[in-house]
Amino acid sequence: MDRYLVISSDCHAGLEPQHYRNYVDPKFRDAFDEALPHQVRSTKTMEESFLISDINAEWRKGYETLLTGAWDHAERMKVMDGDGVAVEVIFPDGITEQNAPPFGAGFSMPTEGVDPELQWAGSHAHNRWLAELVSQAPDRRLGLACIPVLWDIDQSVREIRLAKENGLTGGIVIPPMWGSLPAYHHPRYDPIWEVCQDLDMPIHVHIGPSPIQEYFGPMKEMQSGTGPDLKGAMGAYLSEVVFWSSRSITFMIWAGVFERYPKLKFSIVEGAIDWVPDFLRTLDVRYTDSPQAQKLGDYISHLSMKPSDYFRRNVRLGAACMSPGDGKLGESIGPDCIMWGSDYPHPEGSWPYTQDQMVKAMAGLSEDEVAAQLGGNAVKFYNLDAKKLAPIAARIGPDKSAFH
Amino acid sequence: MDRYLVISSDCHAGLEPQHYRNYVDPKFRDAFDEALPHQVRSTKTMEESFLISDINAEWRKGYETLLTGAWDHAERMKVMDGDGVAVEVIFPDGITEQNAPPFGAGFSMPTEGVDPELQWAGSHAHNRWLAELVSQAPDRRLGLACIPVLWDIDQSVREIRLAKENGLTGGIVIPPMWGSLPAYHHPRYDPIWEVCQDLDMPIHVHIGPSPIQEYFGPMKEMQSGTGPDLKGAMGAYLSEVVFWSSRSITFMIWAGVFERYPKLKFSIVEGAIDWVPDFLRTLDVRYTDSPQAQKLGDYISHLSMKPSDYFRRNVRLGAACMSPGDGKLGESIGPDCIMWGSDYPHPEGSWPYTQDQMVKAMAGLSEDEVAAQLGGNAVKFYNLDAKKLAPIAARIGPDKSAFH
Repeated sequence: MDRYLVISSDCHAGLEPQHYRNYVDPKFRDAFDEALPHQVRSTKTMEESFLISDINAEWRKGYETLLTGAWDHAERMKVMDGDGVAVEVIFPDGITEQNAPPFGAGFSMPTEGVDPELQWAGSHAHNRWLAELVSQAPDRRLGLACIPVLWDIDQSVREIRLAKENGLTGGIVIPPMWGSLPAYHHPRYDPIWEVCQDLDMPIHVHIGPSPIQEYFGPMKEMQSGTGPDLKGAMGAYLSEVVFWSSRSITFMIWAGVFERYPKLKFSIVEGAIDWVPDFLRTLDVRYTDSPQAQKLGDYISHLSMKPSDYFRRNVRLGAACMSPGDGKLGESIGPDCIMWGSDYPHPEGSWPYTQDQMVKAMAGLSEDEVAAQLGGNAVKFYNLDAKKLAPIAARIGPDKSAFH
Repeated sequence: MDRYLVISSDCHAGLEPQHYRNYVDPKFRDAFDEALPHQVRSTKTMEESFLISDINAEWRKGYETLLTGAWDHAERMKVMDGDGVAVEVIFPDGITEQNAPPFGAGFSMPTEGVDPELQWAGSHAHNRWLAELVSQAPDRRLGLACIPVLWDIDQSVREIRLAKENGLTGGIVIPPMWGSLPAYHHPRYDPIWEVCQDLDMPIHVHIGPSPIQEYFGPMKEMQSGTGPDLKGAMGAYLSEVVFWSSRSITFMIWAGVFERYPKLKFSIVEGAIDWVPDFLRTLDVRYTDSPQAQKLGDYISHLSMKPSDYFRRNVRLGAACMSPGDGKLGESIGPDCIMWGSDYPHPEGSWPYTQDQMVKAMAGLSEDEVAAQLGGNAVKFYNLDAKKLAPIAARIGPDKSAFH
């Protein structure tokens, strides 16, 4: 075959906020109507803080219709075909198309000032709608169910089973931050890890959430524009944002979660991947004997391998936003770990310049390496049927000659 | 000279908790009496969580008297002479000798469940006592004033001036974590940075504080031992602990604090220093153009240099706990940045094996490089008089022949 099979490990979809109403359980619709204007306002604020409006408007120009693929089946197919993406993994949307699910559901799932019942109601609404979107092109879409696992473990386990039955076979998204609730090294989460291993449902955290007010000031000041000029807030945010999501893995690796559930799959998604070699080195150094460690008791005897070994076996990177040459990081991170992603419809992703950015990201890699990062690694991770996908790739996949 | 001049950039001193009473303002003594048993209990709990008691007891064996140098002038002089340390920078104590100042003062200065007036009272008590300890050997001791800068800026500025007048000329210690108060990129802290630059008072943060309950569970469960087995909690803590203190620099660098106060001095203390090259690389990558950054507005035009340039000019590492060969990191971090420290009287530091560990840390360095890391860099940072210190070094300093 002269074309690559491409799986995008990071795409987003979500309804415009008012259209989630029909997917919300009737008993929560009054609450939905009440919350909607607040949600629209705070999403708008976030968008303005994170994306200079004129740059974003400029970026959108000419792509207005294709951007409705954020929720529209037909437009979305055009985008994926144009990008050469045979299969996409679908997260809820973030702020950039202002189409996050209601009630603080989404990939952030914050725990402060949130009603757990409503966050579940928002998750249900999104998961229902997403199952419909997936069913319109089941061979091309892997939907991820939003599961706010922090509140009730039994309920979460039931919902994970239900998600798989309903066709959301890509796995689940869990909150990357636990607030004042127990972190992911706590044994209370074991039933979650167990059911995900049993059903082969990969777990995902999506980078982006942070204690946002530490960087940008109180939401009120952000909205009113009355706060002081917090110079460099964005620089601090960008320097730290990976920390807030990667700590899920830190806690799970040290807790021995991947020791006890050796087939559990975990994907950490978006963000440059240049942080990973440093991250693994730090964990491994803390694992090996150091003058400090010897005095702090035994925290490693429940682990049969060093932290980076668990990472390379169980963890994958949904690598949207790859910079030129990033593919080479596979050599130090691990050849199976990098799964390319487009991040459609977000402006920080590759779309609408996907093929150009793809080629630059993969610079210097062999054909096998490119095949692995663009699709092969995801085929294994999501247990896809490459043979069944071959005709799609043969029709829309990027031409290998562009890469070599 | 055939001996090195050694400055320890990280030592600790503190009274046994009950003895702080006489240094507390009389109007807070009732509160002191009430708080003391709780402080003793929670310090004990922390010590037990962080140091396996039998290992710690084993380590102390035979050193009981020299460990009273944590507060006793004469014993402390014996230790410093024995270690070859001509001058030491003195932080408040942590948990290991159970002699932290009262009311949550110290180098952690938490913000949750704390009365600011009492935290100031505790800081005053410690600063008064420390000024006495310093006055008993003013050429050998640089005392650091505890200044909880998060509460009241004007008061902090007054207290910094007072500290210098009272002989605490080493500078100040500020809280590494700000809780829900504004972070260090906020312009409200400018008067602090200004007075510290004007008076040449270096600012210090000490690594160690963290959101401890995220790792080890609620304090109640830690004390009662009734919590679940949070396997790997120590591994997660050790993997992340540097983050909680280094973010002070992250926020200050991005805010342009070192642009506006180019002579401000900042020292980040303890902890392995192997994290620094990764840290600087991350900041610099976020500074240089990336596909993401261009879409997120201007967050660098107020900076005339890249983040690592500010670090190398304004920031120093109080490098206690150096591992064998760590001196070589000076090549990537910067030749002026590393200031060796002994961490006396903490078991994770070099004492009582200081000279052996010193030699191993400096392996492969030239005589000039060793001289810089053991003392020369600190001489410049703390504006010391090397000539005046030469006779002390000639008497007690480590023999150069042991290093080369």
